[in-house]
Amino acid sequence: MKAHASDDDIANVVRMVEALAYRAHIIAGVERTVVACVGEERGEAHSLQHLESVSGVERVMPVLRSFKLASREVRPEGSRIIVGGVEIGGPRLTVIAGPCAVESADQVNGAADGVKLGGAHLLRGGAYKPRTSPYSFQGMEDEGLILLEEAGRRVGLPVVTEIMDAHDIDEVAEHADMLQVGARNSQNFSLLRRLGKCRKPILLKRGMSTRLEEFLMAAEYILSAGNPNVVLCERGIRTFETATRNTLDLNAVPLLKEWTHLPVIVDPSHGTGIWSLVAPMALASIAAGADGLLIEVHPDPRAALSDGPQQLKPARFAQLMKSLEPLAAAVGRTL
Amino acid sequence: MKAHASDDDIANVVRMVEALAYRAHIIAGVERTVVACVGEERGEAHSLQHLESVSGVERVMPVLRSFKLASREVRPEGSRIIVGGVEIGGPRLTVIAGPCAVESADQVNGAADGVKLGGAHLLRGGAYKPRTSPYSFQGMEDEGLILLEEAGRRVGLPVVTEIMDAHDIDEVAEHADMLQVGARNSQNFSLLRRLGKCRKPILLKRGMSTRLEEFLMAAEYILSAGNPNVVLCERGIRTFETATRNTLDLNAVPLLKEWTHLPVIVDPSHGTGIWSLVAPMALASIAAGADGLLIEVHPDPRAALSDGPQQLKPARFAQLMKSLEPLAAAVGRTL
Amino acid sequence: MKAHASDDDIANVVRMVEALAYRAHIIAGVERTVVACVGEERGEAHSLQHLESVSGVERVMPVLRSFKLASREVRPEGSRIIVGGVEIGGPRLTVIAGPCAVESADQVNGAADGVKLGGAHLLRGGAYKPRTSPYSFQGMEDEGLILLEEAGRRVGLPVVTEIMDAHDIDEVAEHADMLQVGARNSQNFSLLRRLGKCRKPILLKRGMSTRLEEFLMAAEYILSAGNPNVVLCERGIRTFETATRNTLDLNAVPLLKEWTHLPVIVDPSHGTGIWSLVAPMALASIAAGADGLLIEVHPDPRAALSDGPQQLKPARFAQLMKSLEPLAAAVGRTL
Amino acid sequence: MKAHASDDDIANVVRMVEALAYRAHIIAGVERTVVACVGEERGEAHSLQHLESVSGVERVMPVLRSFKLASREVRPEGSRIIVGGVEIGGPRLTVIAGPCAVESADQVNGAADGVKLGGAHLLRGGAYKPRTSPYSFQGMEDEGLILLEEAGRRVGLPVVTEIMDAHDIDEVAEHADMLQVGARNSQNFSLLRRLGKCRKPILLKRGMSTRLEEFLMAAEYILSAGNPNVVLCERGIRTFETATRNTLDLNAVPLLKEWTHLPVIVDPSHGTGIWSLVAPMALASIAAGADGLLIEVHPDPRAALSDGPQQLKPARFAQLMKSLEPLAAAVGRTL
Repeated sequence: MKAHASDDDIANVVRMVEALAYRAHIIAGVERTVVACVGEERGEAHSLQHLESVSGVERVMPVLRSFKLASREVRPEGSRIIVGGVEIGGPRLTVIAGPCAVESADQVNGAADGVKLGGAHLLRGGAYKPRTSPYSFQGMEDEGLILLEEAGRRVGLPVVTEIMDAHDIDEVAEHADMLQVGARNSQNFSLLRRLGKCRKPILLKRGMSTRLEEFLMAAEYILSAGNPNVVLCERGIRTFETATRNTLDLNAVPLLKEWTHLPVIVDPSHGTGIWSLVAPMALASIAAGADGLLIEVHPDPRAALSDGPQQLKPARFAQLMKSLEPLAAAVGRTL
Repeated sequence: MKAHASDDDIANVVRMVEALAYRAHIIAGVERTVVACVGEERGEAHSLQHLESVSGVERVMPVLRSFKLASREVRPEGSRIIVGGVEIGGPRLTVIAGPCAVESADQVNGAADGVKLGGAHLLRGGAYKPRTSPYSFQGMEDEGLILLEEAGRRVGLPVVTEIMDAHDIDEVAEHADMLQVGARNSQNFSLLRRLGKCRKPILLKRGMSTRLEEFLMAAEYILSAGNPNVVLCERGIRTFETATRNTLDLNAVPLLKEWTHLPVIVDPSHGTGIWSLVAPMALASIAAGADGLLIEVHPDPRAALSDGPQQLKPARFAQLMKSLEPLAAAVGRTL
Repeated sequence: MKAHASDDDIANVVRMVEALAYRAHIIAGVERTVVACVGEERGEAHSLQHLESVSGVERVMPVLRSFKLASREVRPEGSRIIVGGVEIGGPRLTVIAGPCAVESADQVNGAADGVKLGGAHLLRGGAYKPRTSPYSFQGMEDEGLILLEEAGRRVGLPVVTEIMDAHDIDEVAEHADMLQVGARNSQNFSLLRRLGKCRKPILLKRGMSTRLEEFLMAAEYILSAGNPNVVLCERGIRTFETATRNTLDLNAVPLLKEWTHLPVIVDPSHGTGIWSLVAPMALASIAAGADGLLIEVHPDPRAALSDGPQQLKPARFAQLMKSLEPLAAAVGRTL
Repeated sequence: MKAHASDDDIANVVRMVEALAYRAHIIAGVERTVVACVGEERGEAHSLQHLESVSGVERVMPVLRSFKLASREVRPEGSRIIVGGVEIGGPRLTVIAGPCAVESADQVNGAADGVKLGGAHLLRGGAYKPRTSPYSFQGMEDEGLILLEEAGRRVGLPVVTEIMDAHDIDEVAEHADMLQVGARNSQNFSLLRRLGKCRKPILLKRGMSTRLEEFLMAAEYILSAGNPNVVLCERGIRTFETATRNTLDLNAVPLLKEWTHLPVIVDPSHGTGIWSLVAPMALASIAAGADGLLIEVHPDPRAALSDGPQQLKPARFAQLMKSLEPLAAAVGRTL
């Protein structure tokens, strides 16, 4: 309550709180009175927030975090998600690699060979591409999807691809082993809810300005609609820093691991936007406790139709995988 | 080029630039050489960015902004968009008002009466609500849509409502005069492209972390798909400041008015999140040159199922409209 | 407390809270227990925060804001600060104008004539300049100070100048009527504390990443050291937006006016960094409730040694002052 | 130039550029003309920026970064800084550890014993504390300085302490082996310039909203004033994320190592603000390529007078040091 709230103001607030089926505790402080509200956390819980517009009320402060199914308390041992036979979230690290976008059969096959040789566990590639400009390359769409699937099958790697439109879920789920939700759709709740109805594992990227609690609420949309197979991916947030494409927020890794049982991987390619930073930040991600990595690899980055500056050549990817081995061992993981 | 780039590096870059159908100009500086690239701006233009991964290259800096159809150069006199007979973008300011969400027939009718009486030009109300938590009230959906339409018809105001899912476009377009794209969908390119195929005016909100140039590129998705009726809405961006729900970026108003011919309105309700700040920031928006306002009005904000703290009571809304009159006159507009 | 906190954990926390001379109230919730702590707010109050490292504790959340002397509760009618006979914080708006930096006698006199003619109430000009690069022009220092004082005296305007170093306080206070603390020094507590010991009015700019509560705590440093003459200045914060130099946060104006009795002015020159945005944002600032403006005016911006792109020519400044008049009247102020 | 710039506009700009002693190259593009300016980078270079206010000019874009002495090009092999006999920047990692603030002889001695035992190379402790609130504990000042020095001498570790006021440089330099500039003073240019005149090694922390280029310009202030002994410290930046005290920007580590020859260390204590995140982020920092760490250690964090939640107990610090060993080896460093 405000410093000058009257007894009537306080009594009024108590009445309103109780009308919302909470118990009210009055705590008389030296300068102010606080009304503590205790109750079952439901959808309506948020209606307490409206008390901010009531006379004499200074602030309404929620005390509990609002994710439930994603909470580590639900599954203290951590979840392991299986994607086409590959486990994410166990002691072995999982590396997903491949080109930003599928551009041709040759390109995706070149990338698939490269990442398989380097030791990746899953092949990624974009068929539908979210691009800032409508004039930029938008992906090969259905054709790209089939090229990706074939490339994955040929080298024996399950495939991951981005889903941009709820309309395409069935089509994409038929050809891919894991569906990725990109940063720009991370609060597209309509898409998330529908992905909750499908059985495929979902790779959910953090939005550019999504707080960690909101990120888990986005996961909660999928979990609460029935799909428990969610892997979280930190991919950098938007800050004032312009030297890098995004600011990779590795604090998120150990904090998410405390808060949730869901596996957490990191995408240092988008998180930096600069190929020379990808390897050091991949190592840092694992040291911070990530369960895996998402790395963009292109057979010829200079010729890439999107995100060229952040894609690694297969040879550099192989080097990175090699340097990851002792690092993984140092933090008690295998590769 | 880097300081130590060799002549071979430079020649190689020139060759690559020309292969991309640009002309290359070599500018030898005191410490470094710059290769200026001149060409028609197309989708592929972005492929120049990939040169950053080429030996000897330090940075690739685009010089031109990439929106075209949204550019003021295309229509220096500014666009006027007609929504159910109401013009946005002319000398008269346009005020869109109504509840955050449609909650019941009584509530939306109460709000409609209030905003009509206060002098609003359009009625808003959410039928499909994007909520951070899946456990929060998600809107009355189709039923809400019809209640909104009826309330608008009864008081004689065209209606605006949010579209969250491309799947609902036909349904929503049948009942509403203007479709709003919310901040969380402002880079849902799949939705934007489909809205470009419909004829209804679109109210496009800026995303929480969307730069102004990206905001215009999002508009460009709609424009380039064939729908010229786009109104932009500044609604606050996400920053480190936690005292307000968002940071209303009014710099955006005069800057957008310089860059684009599209009308620009402001939403001080979401831009502040605090009802007592709505009136001063509404006045400030008009002083900064906005073409109109989006104001949340609820007959009983304390009972609101969403965003209670930022919604005005009808009486306060009427007061605000009154205080807007002399302000509008002072900047050469009418209300 | 955490969800699984034991009774021992809770008893232990209560014991620790009481040892810090607070009263502890136990509130048993559905999922968790909350321990409310009531006590006099002192320096040590912050030691409660340390309980976060105690077994079973989930979070420590302070309920009260920590500024006191700056709080509006202390002086509900608002403070008026007198600078060389000019009042800031009353019904009349106060306009401070002049060049970014004093560059020569001719330049500062040209600016002084221009701003006096346009109707400014105070003359500003930097003698000591904080520049990002050590190789940029650093100001004329003592010589500039004297040129500014003379120019002000000649046209009959009190002068405002920036203080960068506690070492210079006496010197600057001798020649200037108001001392400005720049954004980069807004949390230079050592400087603030010393300014609290001087009697001159202080113009305190918000830091680039200072939250409003921290801004008032910075003012509290000056107030608590004995100097009650503080004027706050919003000058834009640093965000992800790169189209403008800073993001002018006008939400700060009505919010600060609610929280504090100190006058609040706005600097749209730094807040935008672009001269064509200065006039609309100056109007917006006044509409939002600001008590005045800080505007950079240079007789020849193209030749300016610092911040040329954001300085107005005297003729444009005069135009702006003219357009401010009806706007001020519309919000019940005079100019 | 703008799209509609006239030939006169262009000729005028060329004339102005040449008057500033640059050579102007005209590049005629498809839609626009670009005037490239070539010249020696000096202080005045920035005056080109003012051309933005000239008729027909759209934008002025600097191509080169402006730090010089800090640039890696100056010393490609990297600098090694010696602090009281301990080297920073060589193959061996350097760990600086100790309490946030010196609070008593017992406390600082307890911390010194703990960090020495754990294997730290330098002892840190704050005698002058920059606190957001003037009512919080401000440090033991001179007395704290002497306690720190004695504790360091007793356990055989050189000491690092923060300098807040240029006035105290001589005093602090007499008792400490390295002077730390805190985040809030990272653009206190007056302090930086004076530290450039002293010979002691400087530990320069990045400001909360300092871009990496600006960070190096701050270092440049010290270097250009004559002191080459600067170590950079990433300590987290301020973003929209509220779950952690700051967002530790580890991208900064490999990027700074590319740009500058100065050693780079990381402070995960401030960078996270949460003790349980300190160890994983310390490991991540080393994996990213940092030359060392700054870790807050307190014999009894619950009793700490400042920053309790982020300080480690000596036993946890020892554990962390142990887990660092195999990690350091994995990236080719020693501890």
